[in-house]
Amino acid sequence: MAKLQLIKPREKRPREKWRNFTDWFNWIIMETEVYDFRYPVKGAYVWRPYGMRIRRLVESYVRLVHDETGHQEVLFPVFIPYEFFSKESEHIRGFENEVFWVSKGGTGEERLVLRPTSETAMMPMFKLWIKDHTDLPFKVYQIVSVFRAETKATRPMIRLREISMFKEAHTAHANREDAERQIKEAMEIYKKIFDYLSIPYLISQRPEWDKFAGAVYTIAFDTVMPDGKTMQIGTVHYLGTNFSRVFDVRYLTPSGDWEYVHTTSYGISERVIAAMIAVHGDDKGLALPPNVAPIQVVIVPIMYKGTEEAIMREVKSITEELTNAGIRVKVDDRTDKTPGWKYNYWEMMGVPLRIEIGPKDVENRQVVLARRDTMEKFVAPREGIVDTVKELLNVINDNMRSMAWEFLRSMTTKATTVDEARKRLDSGGVVEVPWSGDNDCGMAIQQLLDADALGVPMDEDASKDISGLRDLACSDKQANYWLRIARRY
Amino acid sequence: MAKLQLIKPREKRPREKWRNFTDWFNWIIMETEVYDFRYPVKGAYVWRPYGMRIRRLVESYVRLVHDETGHQEVLFPVFIPYEFFSKESEHIRGFENEVFWVSKGGTGEERLVLRPTSETAMMPMFKLWIKDHTDLPFKVYQIVSVFRAETKATRPMIRLREISMFKEAHTAHANREDAERQIKEAMEIYKKIFDYLSIPYLISQRPEWDKFAGAVYTIAFDTVMPDGKTMQIGTVHYLGTNFSRVFDVRYLTPSGDWEYVHTTSYGISERVIAAMIAVHGDDKGLALPPNVAPIQVVIVPIMYKGTEEAIMREVKSITEELTNAGIRVKVDDRTDKTPGWKYNYWEMMGVPLRIEIGPKDVENRQVVLARRDTMEKFVAPREGIVDTVKELLNVINDNMRSMAWEFLRSMTTKATTVDEARKRLDSGGVVEVPWSGDNDCGMAIQQLLDADALGVPMDEDASKDISGLRDLACSDKQANYWLRIARRY
Repeated sequence: MAKLQLIKPREKRPREKWRNFTDWFNWIIMETEVYDFRYPVKGAYVWRPYGMRIRRLVESYVRLVHDETGHQEVLFPVFIPYEFFSKESEHIRGFENEVFWVSKGGTGEERLVLRPTSETAMMPMFKLWIKDHTDLPFKVYQIVSVFRAETKATRPMIRLREISMFKEAHTAHANREDAERQIKEAMEIYKKIFDYLSIPYLISQRPEWDKFAGAVYTIAFDTVMPDGKTMQIGTVHYLGTNFSRVFDVRYLTPSGDWEYVHTTSYGISERVIAAMIAVHGDDKGLALPPNVAPIQVVIVPIMYKGTEEAIMREVKSITEELTNAGIRVKVDDRTDKTPGWKYNYWEMMGVPLRIEIGPKDVENRQVVLARRDTMEKFVAPREGIVDTVKELLNVINDNMRSMAWEFLRSMTTKATTVDEARKRLDSGGVVEVPWSGDNDCGMAIQQLLDADALGVPMDEDASKDISGLRDLACSDKQANYWLRIARRY
Repeated sequence: MAKLQLIKPREKRPREKWRNFTDWFNWIIMETEVYDFRYPVKGAYVWRPYGMRIRRLVESYVRLVHDETGHQEVLFPVFIPYEFFSKESEHIRGFENEVFWVSKGGTGEERLVLRPTSETAMMPMFKLWIKDHTDLPFKVYQIVSVFRAETKATRPMIRLREISMFKEAHTAHANREDAERQIKEAMEIYKKIFDYLSIPYLISQRPEWDKFAGAVYTIAFDTVMPDGKTMQIGTVHYLGTNFSRVFDVRYLTPSGDWEYVHTTSYGISERVIAAMIAVHGDDKGLALPPNVAPIQVVIVPIMYKGTEEAIMREVKSITEELTNAGIRVKVDDRTDKTPGWKYNYWEMMGVPLRIEIGPKDVENRQVVLARRDTMEKFVAPREGIVDTVKELLNVINDNMRSMAWEFLRSMTTKATTVDEARKRLDSGGVVEVPWSGDNDCGMAIQQLLDADALGVPMDEDASKDISGLRDLACSDKQANYWLRIARRY
């Protein structure tokens, strides 16, 4: 990297309001015109242009990683006939209370539901498309709206009746082994997406009583929000032959037998954007990772009488160079706002890097660079500005990722007594407690701690140092795993 | 362009089955795996991967031209409260019989409709967002699913209950003049999109009795399908203050008054893809314009024993060069299919250009190029292949556009007597007949000819050579315009 001369050191970013998460979140998404929660239907909200620009960048990357791994994009209808929706008994039991019904002109002549997820829409078509073993593995995905008639309090971008950015992948495989290889691929895909957005995560196998309706098992990604509650940001389900049996989706094996396919499904939603906003922000506003910031660099000219022309010439030439290098640049040359006002504004909007150019800078062939993530300021040479900016944007992505992981790690602890665990939960975060693996004991732990089980760690040794410990609720039982407990969104 | 040596002349493309449009269309979209109409809900269909790849390219261009002209992308909920949906009296009258209702868990506790179009979803938010004249013009768009409970026979990609690629733009303006300037901009945007897809069009002002429910007037784009029926592929509506009055959307003028905004809306849908498939295809299958072909160039190696290595080296180097130049290339090196089989297959898939490379070609530093649009074959030098291909792809875009326009023009005629007009309509196409401008007479013309009025031409002088002619239905009335009449999809 070019020599940067530090002129303003790293600042402690104020994070008081940020910790009062709901108020902060609702303030910042409205104030930055990312989102509007004043739409007159419960749990249904509006994405505004700045939010859509973030969304498009996130969606592009989500498409890219799915395409790269051989998933093919499809698009299925919103309507699912009830007859199909209700075929798999666990599935319908899990979803029937939160499904929206559709009828034409209020006559009720049709029995259709709005998809809450698309397993039962896809399976009848899988049956038509999958013939023999050469068609497997079969991997498709779509990015669509899904609908859940949430009875709990809805929450902008987090708990929705219309989830409008549901990426759901559905795959079919010859056997359990290949399906479980797919589960691993799905986990890698999600890690890649969260890493790209600098979002830290815990990976846990959800307990039996909290798996997806119709799944054999569910693996979930959770992140820790500023207030210490966790939020589920992605799930991966192994569905076994539960769906293929009821929809009769079979394939011809090389030896001439007909066998049921094993299926998986995995989903993420706009919650990834909510998480990204949540984990990186501060009291000043958004802080967007350069990877998906609609504006990566804002240039603020500092005008003094008589120097306008020279400054704007420099601004123009830098803008051109950066734009040609594929960097998303915005020049704020409004004349009715002061530079200070603009600094605050673009910090609130989360722009990762600001370039200030005044008369002295033009004269000295330099620019001033201000980082959103650390609030540091540097002087950098005008020469080689493209490389400097590119490198800095990468550094910012990485630094935001590390800071976020540091926060998540600081919010994750172990506890071996109920008191200790309660204390930890009350101060926020995730606590891992000893568990036998017995479902009744697991549910008893939830009750004891008045919190939810996220499940058993998949991203670390779930049995490390567990020997000799007793189940937190069932003291007659030996502990076999750590069980993650948290208060959840 | 590099010297091309013609080795197979332009072929007459067989278009017998193509004219039997419905059968041809249903065959080709299934056979090429663009679309699947076996989904078990009336009027709801599935986009398959090849179709989605076309769709993405079309959507990207649609986004680009809207972004370039200052439209900002937003995303509104699918649900509209009935209370809002029914505010504008013409609008609700036009849509109420084809709206889907939603209820939670079948209890009917909520009064929500699934949007058939979003004027009434947007207006309550426009009211919150638009404050004064500096906020105008205000231009947004979204690409979403909309729902219409069609009672007529539904048709894959053409008459849908879920229109899944509805691009709707909504704009607000200070006065009629600025709104009508926007109408012109919208027309230019649509021309640009249709030109990009090489789709020819007629632009007509829809008659009063066929305008959009709630509009002051509607301008529509129609194309002519292979069987001579027309299909509406885009509409542009001037809504006046019809919606702003009932939703009370006003702005503060520079002189301090509160005035109602004038609004417009304009939409296109997946019908543009249906039209593109329809107008360019033939009995062999699809013919996709290079601009949106997922595969622009397919390379077929012609292997002979002992030459495989040299050929594949050449194929690889050409693929690399073309890919680096941003051309979408696919190599078909399957060993279980003959070259002839591959030619037919990729012609069916609509790939605009094929490169064949055999041992003689490697030896002579040349390639064989085969055009899908004319079925011509050429020998071209290996050297400069990137430029040759780029130029050819442009030539193909342009030639497909001209051929399609030629067809459309051949299907558009004038007639001044009922007999003549009927004869023309029976052989397919659009006939322009003299009309006074009186609505009753216009509807009488429709009845006389057993066909629909598309309206008065906007793309040519609607009164040219009309003087002295009489209204086709009301012979006591002088004709003032040509009125376009057709049988429609």
